[in-house]
Amino acid sequence: MCQLLAMNCNVPTDIVFSFTGFATRGGGTDHHADGWGIAFFEGAGVRHFVDYQAAIHSPVAELIRRVPIKSKNVIAHIRKATQGGVALENCHPFVRELWGRYFVFAHNGDLKDFAPELDSSYRPVGATDSETAFCYILQELRHRFDRRPALGELAAAIGELARKIASFGTFNMTLSDGNAMFVHCSTRLHYVVRQYPFSEAVLSDQDMKVDFSEVTTPNDRVAVIVTEPLTSNETWIALQPGEVKVFAEGRPLP
Amino acid sequence: MCQLLAMNCNVPTDIVFSFTGFATRGGGTDHHADGWGIAFFEGAGVRHFVDYQAAIHSPVAELIRRVPIKSKNVIAHIRKATQGGVALENCHPFVRELWGRYFVFAHNGDLKDFAPELDSSYRPVGATDSETAFCYILQELRHRFDRRPALGELAAAIGELARKIASFGTFNMTLSDGNAMFVHCSTRLHYVVRQYPFSEAVLSDQDMKVDFSEVTTPNDRVAVIVTEPLTSNETWIALQPGEVKVFAEGRPLP
Repeated sequence: MCQLLAMNCNVPTDIVFSFTGFATRGGGTDHHADGWGIAFFEGAGVRHFVDYQAAIHSPVAELIRRVPIKSKNVIAHIRKATQGGVALENCHPFVRELWGRYFVFAHNGDLKDFAPELDSSYRPVGATDSETAFCYILQELRHRFDRRPALGELAAAIGELARKIASFGTFNMTLSDGNAMFVHCSTRLHYVVRQYPFSEAVLSDQDMKVDFSEVTTPNDRVAVIVTEPLTSNETWIALQPGEVKVFAEGRPLP
Repeated sequence: MCQLLAMNCNVPTDIVFSFTGFATRGGGTDHHADGWGIAFFEGAGVRHFVDYQAAIHSPVAELIRRVPIKSKNVIAHIRKATQGGVALENCHPFVRELWGRYFVFAHNGDLKDFAPELDSSYRPVGATDSETAFCYILQELRHRFDRRPALGELAAAIGELARKIASFGTFNMTLSDGNAMFVHCSTRLHYVVRQYPFSEAVLSDQDMKVDFSEVTTPNDRVAVIVTEPLTSNETWIALQPGEVKVFAEGRPLP
C-alpha cells in the first residue's frame, strides 16, 4: 500500500519536519520503495518532484529535506506499486490543468475493474488506476462547470465523484487546486491541526523533534493529513471510511 | 530576452556539461535572472523543475548540475521577464498532456497582440504570451488529430502553427513529446550534433571542459540546440529565421 501526506495552511509553511518523517517510510522504516513524489503550490504555480528511487535514497528527496520550500498546499506520496510498473510516469502526485489552474492528486489504494469512459479531455500517460481516477474526476468536473464554482459546490462534486470511484475498491485520496485540500478516506487517513498555542512535536519514524512555538506566529494554522500519524505526542483524528473532508486556510471545513 | 537549451539523443544522456554553461547565464555571465526551468523526459514520464530564483543562485539548479539525470529529450530555459511577472507559474518550460503523453514547451521572444481563441481544452495558468502559444498549439493539434500522427505529419502541423504564431512577433521555440524535438527559429537558435569520433569541448561561459570520447560509446549521438553557442571549439549551425527543424535520435531530420 502507498502512503499519503498532505498539508494545508493559512500562510506558506515548509513541510521539512513532516516530510522527513514521511520519507523515512519510503524504504526506511516501512516498505514503500517503488518511488515517491511531492508537489508544492506556490501562487498559481506548482513545483513537482517525482522519482522512482526509494525516497530514502533519492537525492531529490534529500533536497526537499534540506531546502525549506514554503507553500499553503502540499501533496506527497510514497509508492508501493500495485498497478503499473516502477516508472516515472506512474509516480504520484499527478498534475493537470483545469479552468486555468493546476490540480494535484495522489491516491492510496487499489481499484478493481475501474474503467470509466474517458473522452479526449484527459488521458492517462502511465498505467495506474490512480491516474485514470484523476483523469475521470477532472473530466467530470469540466463537464459540470465551465469555470471554478464556489468551494462548497466544488467540494460536493468532488465528494460525489470520490464516493463513486470508491465503489471500485480502496480510494484514499488527496486533491488540491492550490486553494483548498480535498480528501476522501476509504480505509486509513488521519489529520492534525497545529495552531496557537504551538508546542513540541516528536517524529515517530526518526529521532527528531521540533518546537513549533519557535518557528510560528500566533496566527499560523496548519493542517497535516497523512495515512498513519507522523508524531507520537500529538492527537491525530482518524477519518471514517467514506468520509470526505475539505481543508482550507489550515483547518477542516465543518 | 530569454534563452533556450534543448537536447535530443539516441540514448539517455545527461546534460550536466551543457546545463552548467547555460545556467551561468541565468544571473552570471548574462542578465536572465527572472527564473529558469528544465524538464527531462524519462520513459513516458517527465521530471520538471522550475524556479523564479536566478539559476546561478538556485539550490535546485545546483542539484541539476551535480546529479546526472539521463534523458533522450530535455528542454531548459532561463527567463528575462517580458510578459507576466516573476512568478513560478510564468517559468518555462511548461508541461501539458495530449493524446496520453506529456508535451514540454519553452519559448524565447515576445508576441504582440497574440490572442488566439482558446476553447476549454487548454487554458493558461500564468500570464505569459508563451503559455498561451503552447495552449494554442496543443488545442489545434488535438482538433486535427485524434491520436498522435506519424512524425512527418506531426512535424508539418507544428511547423505550420509555429509560423502562424511567429507572425505576431519573435517566436524561437522548443517543443517535445518525448520522442522528437521540434524547433522553430525566429531570430537566434543554433545546434550542434555530437557523434563519433567524439572530442573535447570547452564551455564559453565557465572554465570547464569535457572529453566526450571518455564518457560515450561510438553509437551515441546527441543534438544540442541553444540560443547562443555554448562551447568555443565546436562548429555550431545557425538556424535561419522562419526555419523549422525536427530532431530525432540525436540528429536533425532532413
